[in-house]
Amino acid sequence: MINVAIVGYGNLGRGVKQALENNKDTKLAALFSRRPEKLKKDIKDIPVLSTEKPLLPEDIKIDVAILCGGSKEDTPVQGPVFAKLFNTIDSFDTHADIPVYFKKMDAIAKENKHCSVISAGWDPGIFSLERVYGDAFLTGSKNYTFWGKGVSQGHSDAARKVEGVLDARQYTVPMDNALNKVRSGEIPDFTTREMHKRVVYVLAEENADRNKITKEITEMPNYYSAYNVEVNFITAEEMKKNHSALPHGGFVMTSGLTGKSKQILEYRCQLESNPEFTGSVLVACARAVYRLQQAGNYGAFTMLDIPPALLSPHSADDLRAHFM
Amino acid sequence: MINVAIVGYGNLGRGVKQALENNKDTKLAALFSRRPEKLKKDIKDIPVLSTEKPLLPEDIKIDVAILCGGSKEDTPVQGPVFAKLFNTIDSFDTHADIPVYFKKMDAIAKENKHCSVISAGWDPGIFSLERVYGDAFLTGSKNYTFWGKGVSQGHSDAARKVEGVLDARQYTVPMDNALNKVRSGEIPDFTTREMHKRVVYVLAEENADRNKITKEITEMPNYYSAYNVEVNFITAEEMKKNHSALPHGGFVMTSGLTGKSKQILEYRCQLESNPEFTGSVLVACARAVYRLQQAGNYGAFTMLDIPPALLSPHSADDLRAHFM
Repeated sequence: MINVAIVGYGNLGRGVKQALENNKDTKLAALFSRRPEKLKKDIKDIPVLSTEKPLLPEDIKIDVAILCGGSKEDTPVQGPVFAKLFNTIDSFDTHADIPVYFKKMDAIAKENKHCSVISAGWDPGIFSLERVYGDAFLTGSKNYTFWGKGVSQGHSDAARKVEGVLDARQYTVPMDNALNKVRSGEIPDFTTREMHKRVVYVLAEENADRNKITKEITEMPNYYSAYNVEVNFITAEEMKKNHSALPHGGFVMTSGLTGKSKQILEYRCQLESNPEFTGSVLVACARAVYRLQQAGNYGAFTMLDIPPALLSPHSADDLRAHFM
Repeated sequence: MINVAIVGYGNLGRGVKQALENNKDTKLAALFSRRPEKLKKDIKDIPVLSTEKPLLPEDIKIDVAILCGGSKEDTPVQGPVFAKLFNTIDSFDTHADIPVYFKKMDAIAKENKHCSVISAGWDPGIFSLERVYGDAFLTGSKNYTFWGKGVSQGHSDAARKVEGVLDARQYTVPMDNALNKVRSGEIPDFTTREMHKRVVYVLAEENADRNKITKEITEMPNYYSAYNVEVNFITAEEMKKNHSALPHGGFVMTSGLTGKSKQILEYRCQLESNPEFTGSVLVACARAVYRLQQAGNYGAFTMLDIPPALLSPHSADDLRAHFM
């Protein structure tokens, strides 16, 4: 039985809790929260501890801590703290900062004889795997990553900051035309606009200037200006009824030639719940990290460094007999 | 530079040769053939040696031998012989015999401080990876493997043995209806017939009884009787023009629930040349096996045991910076 702590109990933390319950070899041992007193009111059967002072009562055993906070402010701080105490898993997804974060976590984990898997989940994570596999199996090929259809929290937040907007939900939508071009064996160069469009649902203040809101969202640099954007105004009821879920997904496609033969690899996720799926991936990584540390492997890892069999609840013999 | 020998120079061997030329860190060092004298007439620039007596001249260095013979008669014999001499890669694909073959190769490789990757390619191989990943990431999910559209050599050979048949080519075709059911989030149980159909192109003797040939193929146990089969009679010219290539491909789909949310993973290969793609996968495995042995890992491995990063020509730093 692998004893797991969840650090941060938002959408992702709840997804991890559910995944721990679905797996027979893992158990939720503790929750760490920044507001433990508040959380204790809802959670009675699991020890709730403070993220700020992660001291462990003697009767609690934790094999792996799964960090479920945000990549901007939580994980860069909590990763180094928790890697001193436990094996860790996180889903740090600021792609450009991964090399620096890796080095920091690698040093701390090694020093404390722990094992830390960073940047796990589906992207970064599974999609990283598929990009590396595609590139390794098809030398000189080209990789394409499409996201969606799904909710982007960052883009939703950005739209929410526009004056007159009460709430907003942004869907990233891959362009069928681009997907089909790659699927048909072409190896095109796409502009940003050709790969994705952005569809925004806005709940506006009653007397807001809708044209102005649309213009501000559509022209927002970094977030929206490079895309074709569709802004739809909806009611509070519609927002709640149709846009409360957090679906996501996407495609990693690799297109290349061996000699004159076209070879195309395609990986696709269709996720009705992004946090639940990500939670499920993190729990598989917790199993791998536990096994890696038990075998004397210390330091930081990404999913690129994990032998696939270690993620599985089945034994190596079973995998060879039933999954090959 | 990783020095690679090819053992057996048929379709797959030629695919491996091409892949070695496409990769900057690998080099073809020697060819082993059962008929070396014959092959020497065509291949002048590479040493051609005998599979029967795999003795190596002193000036040839081989890091990895890639076995490219058949799984029925060649690999079970050549695997143990070559694992004594070199690190090896093979694409042994008799699924039911993999556990026994693994144990045999593991013992020999360990004894000789070599590393042997068995059953590599796309199925077994990449599809095995995707089945294991899908099962690990979605506990309690169901896995579906569809093959095709592509040529099955075994089924083509079986059709060729029917009286009156001069040549035959069998395509395995996945049923769109079944694919779309899984893609839509259903988790159905399929009969064999519901997942694939078999389409056969036959070149018959001039006076052959076509109805009898059709009946014999369609009703052939193990190979055809469980499927809907379509038999088409064509001319020698059509056979050569339209059915000389060896395309293949397929799908691994994983469908499961986390809580009440449907989560669907789909992996797809579209291969214009099965042997060229398989050759390319085997060369990536040769890179991994070389690195594994250099790091002191001896014994047999499958692709399930290989950290993905080891397959890549790029450094771990590059992968973290550019592929995560």
